[in-house]
Amino acid sequence: MSGPKAAPAIAALPLTRPFIAPEELARRAGHAELLRLGANESAFGPSPVALKAMQRELPRTSWYGDPESVELREALAAEHGRAPGEITVAAGIDDLLGLAVRGYLAPGEVAVTTLGSYPTFAYHVNGYGGKLEAVPYARDGRVQLDALAETARRLHAKVVYLANPDNPSGSFASRADVEAFAAALPEDALLVLDEAYADFVPAGDLPANLGPNVLRTRTFSKAFGMAGARIGFALGTTQTVEVFDKIRLQYGVNRTAQIGALDALRDREFTAGVVAEVARGRAEYGALAQRLGLETLASQTNFVCFDLCTRERAEGALESLLTRGVFVRKPGAPPIDRCIRVTVGTAPERAQFAEIFAEVAGLART
Amino acid sequence: MSGPKAAPAIAALPLTRPFIAPEELARRAGHAELLRLGANESAFGPSPVALKAMQRELPRTSWYGDPESVELREALAAEHGRAPGEITVAAGIDDLLGLAVRGYLAPGEVAVTTLGSYPTFAYHVNGYGGKLEAVPYARDGRVQLDALAETARRLHAKVVYLANPDNPSGSFASRADVEAFAAALPEDALLVLDEAYADFVPAGDLPANLGPNVLRTRTFSKAFGMAGARIGFALGTTQTVEVFDKIRLQYGVNRTAQIGALDALRDREFTAGVVAEVARGRAEYGALAQRLGLETLASQTNFVCFDLCTRERAEGALESLLTRGVFVRKPGAPPIDRCIRVTVGTAPERAQFAEIFAEVAGLART
Repeated sequence: MSGPKAAPAIAALPLTRPFIAPEELARRAGHAELLRLGANESAFGPSPVALKAMQRELPRTSWYGDPESVELREALAAEHGRAPGEITVAAGIDDLLGLAVRGYLAPGEVAVTTLGSYPTFAYHVNGYGGKLEAVPYARDGRVQLDALAETARRLHAKVVYLANPDNPSGSFASRADVEAFAAALPEDALLVLDEAYADFVPAGDLPANLGPNVLRTRTFSKAFGMAGARIGFALGTTQTVEVFDKIRLQYGVNRTAQIGALDALRDREFTAGVVAEVARGRAEYGALAQRLGLETLASQTNFVCFDLCTRERAEGALESLLTRGVFVRKPGAPPIDRCIRVTVGTAPERAQFAEIFAEVAGLART
Repeated sequence: MSGPKAAPAIAALPLTRPFIAPEELARRAGHAELLRLGANESAFGPSPVALKAMQRELPRTSWYGDPESVELREALAAEHGRAPGEITVAAGIDDLLGLAVRGYLAPGEVAVTTLGSYPTFAYHVNGYGGKLEAVPYARDGRVQLDALAETARRLHAKVVYLANPDNPSGSFASRADVEAFAAALPEDALLVLDEAYADFVPAGDLPANLGPNVLRTRTFSKAFGMAGARIGFALGTTQTVEVFDKIRLQYGVNRTAQIGALDALRDREFTAGVVAEVARGRAEYGALAQRLGLETLASQTNFVCFDLCTRERAEGALESLLTRGVFVRKPGAPPIDRCIRVTVGTAPERAQFAEIFAEVAGLART
């Protein structure tokens, strides 16, 4: 065909989709709506304080949001003991991962991640022409930090990705382990420490002594219940912020999200309640698994991986759940692709899931 | 300094900011708020129908939006006589321009634009390592289509940018002229036809017979009054949509924006009212200029360029207006950097501007 042709590096990319949307799965399965336990969205919605602020400000959605997110960055700086100039706000962690890869990984350079960890990192590494090297999870879903660091050193990786707590396994590496890991990386490698689920971890358990080689990414999508608003931020250095400022979409973050995020930060009581309820839900899922004769992977997030022993059974369970109107996902790579990953819902949603899953797990065993 | 270093191509980029935000200008000038006539935001807000839908759906902002924007793309397809597979939804035209440049301009290849036209296109060309060639405006603010096409052919440009109606000049090239221009470009060049302001032009005056080499970008930021929501779309081919699908942020568009856009499309009466009021406002600005002994550039948008004859006077007027609490912008490149660009506000905003500008224009003449 004549006509415009994609740039060669882009033309060579595969057409992949990191996630099939629940809306599309619902259409395929012939359901009007699904029990949404697949995307680790918060079942508890946004803070009522944030909601009120967003509703109040919607008539001014004709105005662009502040491209520098000054107020929000000041609030985040106070919250995290940083300077505003060490913080970048973007349209969720997906956006930040793209900026980190584009900013710090030249085409042909090596990035290291865990095989089957959050796929959008891999999406960006491929998309920007990097080489991706992946280290498998341990059988219990823990990230193999020593092997990850060793691989990064051996291959002179320029970007290393660690999600902690991890998605999709839910596993958590201790403060000391992450601090040691960050220190064991090549000096010129950027560690992207994806802490999307950090709000579910007691603050004292999070790493503290991290050097300027670490970029921590956070989001309002999980404990803050604002996934649909697309807003996240990175805690880095003035250098990383400046690199991002050279390439980010200046008006990439919508105004309502910025306003909601600011008020969400202030409503600590609400977030603490969500975190407590999520912990209850995790315990419930653990008890459910036990009743069904299943194991779960240890989780410090708002989801739990149920171990179905084989990939085939996990895939079968996923399919059976979808048929019954339940949307969950599963890890994509061994050894944890034998699991299904279930978001902690509200108490009624958990009860509904327990009932349907008992039936499905019974089938899976036969 | 040791530690992570930006990829060389990114490190070499200048730290530029296409636009200083009104929030920052207000802080600098010591005003709590400015009369916002500088960013071509709609003074008439979003449609009440869209507003109601967004307010209703905000409690579900804990859910991700549909990454495929299926419903919205179907509605847009019906509206524009296209297939949904020929439409990409993204976080505003800024996002789409980045995808077009990244997708179709390999590093080192040439893109052509008008000198001083919408700067985010140039931002992306530089950011992705392209070479930018720019053709000046005519003295009256019209885009020199013949020179643009000739330059594109001579330099084997792979991407050509035309904003029509143009920003910041406001000028409009006729349907026949744009159709001839698109046909005169190199066969393998992508024409990015930025139609952010097309809603202010009678539909019959817009180009219709365009080939598959044209990607038209549209937005909900202007006539639809949803700039802060960050949502726009491109009308292309299944090929361009597939290229964008390889590299776009899958969850880049927030849920509330998608829902608002869908209902905004249905509220034709509201948009028609905005367009009519904007036309009245343009005429008022024309009359104001005449009273002040000034010319304006012809505009088919929601803004008007007032001709202050020299760059120095235009800069002085911008500064004087800001001191008095009025935010406007000015074109950045000759020959139209002798103008200031003023968004059409509401009737009271226009009256306020007229009063302050009369004072400022008087000063500028002395």
